[in-house]
Amino acid sequence: MITEITAQELNTESFISGKVMEIKETVGDGTAINALSGGVDSSTVTMLGHRALGSRLRTVFIQNGLMREGEAEQVVGFFRELGVTVEVIDARKEFFAALKGVTDPEEKREAVTQTFYKNVFGRIVKQSNAKYLLQGTILTDVDETVAGIKRQHNVFEQLGIDPQQVFGYRIIEPLIELRKDGVRKVGKALGLSAELFERIPFPGPALAARVIGEVTPERIETVRKTTVIVEKLLKDTGAFQYMAILHEDRVTGMRDGKRDFGLQIEVRCWDSIDARTATPTRLPFETLEKLSHKIINDVPGVVSVTYNIATKPPSTIEAI
Amino acid sequence: MITEITAQELNTESFISGKVMEIKETVGDGTAINALSGGVDSSTVTMLGHRALGSRLRTVFIQNGLMREGEAEQVVGFFRELGVTVEVIDARKEFFAALKGVTDPEEKREAVTQTFYKNVFGRIVKQSNAKYLLQGTILTDVDETVAGIKRQHNVFEQLGIDPQQVFGYRIIEPLIELRKDGVRKVGKALGLSAELFERIPFPGPALAARVIGEVTPERIETVRKTTVIVEKLLKDTGAFQYMAILHEDRVTGMRDGKRDFGLQIEVRCWDSIDARTATPTRLPFETLEKLSHKIINDVPGVVSVTYNIATKPPSTIEAI
Repeated sequence: MITEITAQELNTESFISGKVMEIKETVGDGTAINALSGGVDSSTVTMLGHRALGSRLRTVFIQNGLMREGEAEQVVGFFRELGVTVEVIDARKEFFAALKGVTDPEEKREAVTQTFYKNVFGRIVKQSNAKYLLQGTILTDVDETVAGIKRQHNVFEQLGIDPQQVFGYRIIEPLIELRKDGVRKVGKALGLSAELFERIPFPGPALAARVIGEVTPERIETVRKTTVIVEKLLKDTGAFQYMAILHEDRVTGMRDGKRDFGLQIEVRCWDSIDARTATPTRLPFETLEKLSHKIINDVPGVVSVTYNIATKPPSTIEAI
Repeated sequence: MITEITAQELNTESFISGKVMEIKETVGDGTAINALSGGVDSSTVTMLGHRALGSRLRTVFIQNGLMREGEAEQVVGFFRELGVTVEVIDARKEFFAALKGVTDPEEKREAVTQTFYKNVFGRIVKQSNAKYLLQGTILTDVDETVAGIKRQHNVFEQLGIDPQQVFGYRIIEPLIELRKDGVRKVGKALGLSAELFERIPFPGPALAARVIGEVTPERIETVRKTTVIVEKLLKDTGAFQYMAILHEDRVTGMRDGKRDFGLQIEVRCWDSIDARTATPTRLPFETLEKLSHKIINDVPGVVSVTYNIATKPPSTIEAI
């Protein structure tokens, strides 16, 4: 039912002017709202929306406490330079309260999704006058949800849930015919800086998807610190995506001659074109050893580091 | 209190004749018993004991259900060729019953140790007339217990527990001044085949030490199948030790287009001289990929494989 536009056949200029026109026509003289995560998809949608609606699009960035180091400040700064004002909403307490005691990955994802939509964003939308919600859904999201691999919080429509009924607004999804590589081309054409639009993909539940087991402020801080190291050391590899995962399993370690039953971090670094299939990047052992040493030295409690060597399929990009 | 004999200064012939004489003098015209695991230490002790006592040493191999594929048959066969009869005791039910519901690594180790000594071996010793127990304790076992890193089941004496009081026998530890490399030299001089005495070290709790979380017959079977693959593919690497670890954490996978919340295997392969410090072997990526593919294809339920990249310290050789 959705016809794919491949990155190869994509004409960015006509795509952009077509989508800007569609958004203008759909919203009319109403107002729209969108949540910006800082990923390529939502950033591109933000730019399309602002080109179409200007200040009649309200863009919010929800600080859920699950973000990478300095992420909110960085994203807001990028858009400030492009003349787009982004409003930051601090909702950390609500998210951690919803995640307390939750260990099942599906329930965790559900807790983040529900807190995001029903509690935080739902409340903001209801309190605003906006009737239109812009979303960065791409074709891969639709595929994966249909296949039952992941619950995507942004595909209510495809799942047969009427978003107007659920949250009282209408969804506009201008990127739904594209895959990640197509979105990157559009983002670039819309003036997004290389730094921003080439950011590595980041999952909806953010760092909560990088923690196996219960998500607490302390465990998020552990994986956040590790993520800084992994992203710094792997940014020049040309890999499609790379990440640190905090395991729930504890392993034996030794510090100052004493037993230390500590944390294990798993590093994944993927080579891929479009995330549908992926293989582990053949990193030099010097890089793997540097990663391991830096993580063990700088992140309190970590005694062991692994590198994932499985392919997708049957593995997936994210661990949970 | 124990003076180390390094592998370099070790004169195997005079060491062996000295120990054979000591064992003869200690046991007198009594009988001795020992438990053979198939590792270098217990194999070497078995040969020393048989040289000293002949048929007055009774050697038992306790099948705890936690062994590697075909291990009991293989070990018994090796010794049969050397003219040594080894008696196999099937105690699988007792071990799995003791491990049921146990997830804490210390409690797991304790369950295996207690079942081995108190229940199974203790019973055999009490039912036999043997007053002397030969044990393959080496100097590294003593070091590590003193440092509190691992509970070693074979160092009661060093821990101040009188074994005569505990189990009603006296312990003879002929290898206690040696480290692993010294034991290998002695084993070789005693005629142990390269296949046997060069076997990679294996922990006391056997495959139970390779399972994070609860040990069940099914989970042991998973790690046993994986161990066959890992040992086959890594045996020619010249590495000090290599192993497969089944994690308790589950990760997302995808099979036949459907979500499959599956198992993760961690592979460790160590370069080391004496196990006191160790670094991950720089395996070629072709080998890592072959490992991962074979494990995922041949071992039911596994969707993800990692390779450990941490050094000891702060990591340890075994995960639990």
